[in-house]
Amino acid sequence: MTIHYPIRPAAGQWSGGAEPALARSALADVATEARRTTTLDWLAERNRRQPMTVERVDLDDLEGWATDPATGTIHHESGRFFSIEGIEVRVENGAVSRWRQPIIDQPEVGVLGILTRTDDGVARFLLQAKAEPGNPGGHQLSPTVQATRSNYTRVHKGRSVPYLEHFLERGRHRVVADVRQSEQGAWFRRKRNRNMVVEVGPEVEEQDGFRWFTLAEIHHLLAVENVVNMDSRTVLSCLALGTDAVPALGRFAAAFQASVARIDGVNEMTAVLSAVTEARTSIEVSTSPVPLNETTGWHRRDGLIRHESGAFFEIVGVAVRASGREVDGWSQPMFAARGEGLAAFLVHEKQGVLHVLLQLRAEPGLVDTVELAPSVQCTPATVRSLRDLPAPPFFDVVEGASAPDIRFDCVMSEEGGRFLGTETRYVIVEADVPAVPPGYLWVTVGQLQELLRHSHYLNVQARSLFACLQSLSTPSARGES
Amino acid sequence: MTIHYPIRPAAGQWSGGAEPALARSALADVATEARRTTTLDWLAERNRRQPMTVERVDLDDLEGWATDPATGTIHHESGRFFSIEGIEVRVENGAVSRWRQPIIDQPEVGVLGILTRTDDGVARFLLQAKAEPGNPGGHQLSPTVQATRSNYTRVHKGRSVPYLEHFLERGRHRVVADVRQSEQGAWFRRKRNRNMVVEVGPEVEEQDGFRWFTLAEIHHLLAVENVVNMDSRTVLSCLALGTDAVPALGRFAAAFQASVARIDGVNEMTAVLSAVTEARTSIEVSTSPVPLNETTGWHRRDGLIRHESGAFFEIVGVAVRASGREVDGWSQPMFAARGEGLAAFLVHEKQGVLHVLLQLRAEPGLVDTVELAPSVQCTPATVRSLRDLPAPPFFDVVEGASAPDIRFDCVMSEEGGRFLGTETRYVIVEADVPAVPPGYLWVTVGQLQELLRHSHYLNVQARSLFACLQSLSTPSARGES
Repeated sequence: MTIHYPIRPAAGQWSGGAEPALARSALADVATEARRTTTLDWLAERNRRQPMTVERVDLDDLEGWATDPATGTIHHESGRFFSIEGIEVRVENGAVSRWRQPIIDQPEVGVLGILTRTDDGVARFLLQAKAEPGNPGGHQLSPTVQATRSNYTRVHKGRSVPYLEHFLERGRHRVVADVRQSEQGAWFRRKRNRNMVVEVGPEVEEQDGFRWFTLAEIHHLLAVENVVNMDSRTVLSCLALGTDAVPALGRFAAAFQASVARIDGVNEMTAVLSAVTEARTSIEVSTSPVPLNETTGWHRRDGLIRHESGAFFEIVGVAVRASGREVDGWSQPMFAARGEGLAAFLVHEKQGVLHVLLQLRAEPGLVDTVELAPSVQCTPATVRSLRDLPAPPFFDVVEGASAPDIRFDCVMSEEGGRFLGTETRYVIVEADVPAVPPGYLWVTVGQLQELLRHSHYLNVQARSLFACLQSLSTPSARGES
Repeated sequence: MTIHYPIRPAAGQWSGGAEPALARSALADVATEARRTTTLDWLAERNRRQPMTVERVDLDDLEGWATDPATGTIHHESGRFFSIEGIEVRVENGAVSRWRQPIIDQPEVGVLGILTRTDDGVARFLLQAKAEPGNPGGHQLSPTVQATRSNYTRVHKGRSVPYLEHFLERGRHRVVADVRQSEQGAWFRRKRNRNMVVEVGPEVEEQDGFRWFTLAEIHHLLAVENVVNMDSRTVLSCLALGTDAVPALGRFAAAFQASVARIDGVNEMTAVLSAVTEARTSIEVSTSPVPLNETTGWHRRDGLIRHESGAFFEIVGVAVRASGREVDGWSQPMFAARGEGLAAFLVHEKQGVLHVLLQLRAEPGLVDTVELAPSVQCTPATVRSLRDLPAPPFFDVVEGASAPDIRFDCVMSEEGGRFLGTETRYVIVEADVPAVPPGYLWVTVGQLQELLRHSHYLNVQARSLFACLQSLSTPSARGES
């Protein structure tokens, strides 16, 4: 279906509240079905041209990495990149009040940046076909730049990172979004990345391995397994979408659009902010470092580290050979989750606008203890195996949702630089709940977009899901008319 | 002068964007001159009825406090309240790149709360006449509740805190503001308080020692030395003021009002947020604990701790006798600044609306390294004594401002529970600057109000000054017509 969007004066491109170039980009679904196929072919071709081989190796045999004999800490011999350490977590009044676990320590703040430019009044986004060792299927669509601080200070001693200069020296360009956000608080200790979108002019062209995409194209591709990588999803979630008088919307997209402008929904913005403040002052989570070799229940044996229950995750070693990267090969430890994760939004129309149910969730590695998380965030296999503990609220609602209520359902992997074959099922279900338990609240899309201008309100799973929700904001992604 | 403000439908009281009850409160200047005298008389009377005596004692003789013989740390014997420790600060590329200093460690988050209620369509705020040992002049106007976590978990074993229940269990009340904010990052390690404004109904009455004030009355009193305490100022700064079609404004107040609605001024909001992100990712400040007795240049001698230069601050002991408090007497260590501080806003009309010049300032004790600070923040005596270092930017502009350009100028003390006789001159000067150096930027009042809904954007000196700037938003405080 082709939408004839009324092109408005070229004046602002991005400028001004309405962001017409962005709106047009979300609606630019001309031939996107064909483009989807083209993109999948392109990724397959990149896999052929620049194959990455990932071989499991013992943690003891990781080239360039060492284990501290006293503590068990696994670190790079240069002291850079990241290390794997132990922490003890204490949660006052938690279901489990105290535990120890391994965690990835990577205190530096990297850059995840997407370049955008406007051609013929339509915003386009420059994505890179990039393979990471943890990716199921090899190449995925990554941000223009995905650089750790080690990358851009050249610790790798490798090739420089294309387009990085546009994010580091931005004098001539318009910054569309620039905010530090957390990553998985269960696996990373205080990890944050700087999420950036920077607008450039027509002089910036696509290099080999990079392509410009409209939002409509990206929204189509979000519905395909393991194509849009986690870093792209979190950066895309920072875009304030609003199509402003879009014709011919279906019911769901119309409810989304009505929600965009709503800074006050069933909860006033002040009440949302107050709920975050309340949770952050009342939930007592404290973490302290402990030696990795004293993390109770975890054992290093047969070249890897695993929990005696078989649950949670394993820490394994990999040796990687690749081409087209800053370096041609390397070894590293990785986390590999045991079982597919589940991250789900319950959404429902209230007062005529779409609302999203979020939970205030404490995670040990978060800089500020508590962030807003999906309505349901868990590992279903673990939930089913732990029969002593109640399932998380609304787990059954998601598991039992019938097809017409499932608005989005796609498996995507977590960041392939640290997590090996670690996949999450991202689901958006239309459902009301009879009562909202403590620590849960309904928010509007407008409130989410406002929160996403600031650091540390939404966790990475919620941001991924929000990018998926945005893909339902126009008829293009689902063929809804 | 009496403003006849068009009373709008009672709907809402506070509700909705316009907050008419708040606007009317800022304009309710009927007889405020008389009320100012009444308030000053009342504070004087409280000083007579509930005198507080503060006696200097040696740090060695502080009842209930101990010094760790190995490290020099000064701590309460209960392990609660706060302790004084040492830190080493490293600032990459700083004017001074490394130093050690004593710092107050108080990791808990207390509550600073003001109750508001609307009578006859006008919002009123419940303030307390409260003496603190560090206050010059004894009793000052404090928030309704000023409670450390020790207070409300009853570590004092003393009397309970009046009105505290309205902030802890707020089910029935509307939360107007609720946000954690930092305190002095040069003196506190990661100290934060929860700043709250909660609206209650007419059933909440003033107890002995408490009075309801309109904003106009508070704005008048801000211009009197050492009357409105620091905790009140920081909570007041969280109120989103905007009088919405106020008649008969002077030029300055009109420029203020025009600025309230401006989320984009000479800098877009995104650019402001990006500047904060940039500073927080690029400025490298690291702190690490060191023993207090190994803080180079600092010496404990003659019952106090001071720097060998005589600058910065001293740590002294006091014994306090008081009545009308949770406990009748106690001893404690305090910080006493050497020399009056200076905190100044440069403000200027740009594009027809008022703009405020802020600096991105790193302070070692801040949770997030960098916050927005006043245009000038320093100790003038130290600036003048350190002839080797250049004076901070715009110091001369403030020092040399002529009377007609000085819109606000008042000395007020910092928090009297920790700081002994520690005063700051708060100044607002109308001045443009030929060029904005790196790390400085102009923001609108609307941008400041939006930032103040979130934690850790504005430091405590900037928040105090913003409360002072708000007092100039109507003709009432300065008699401007």
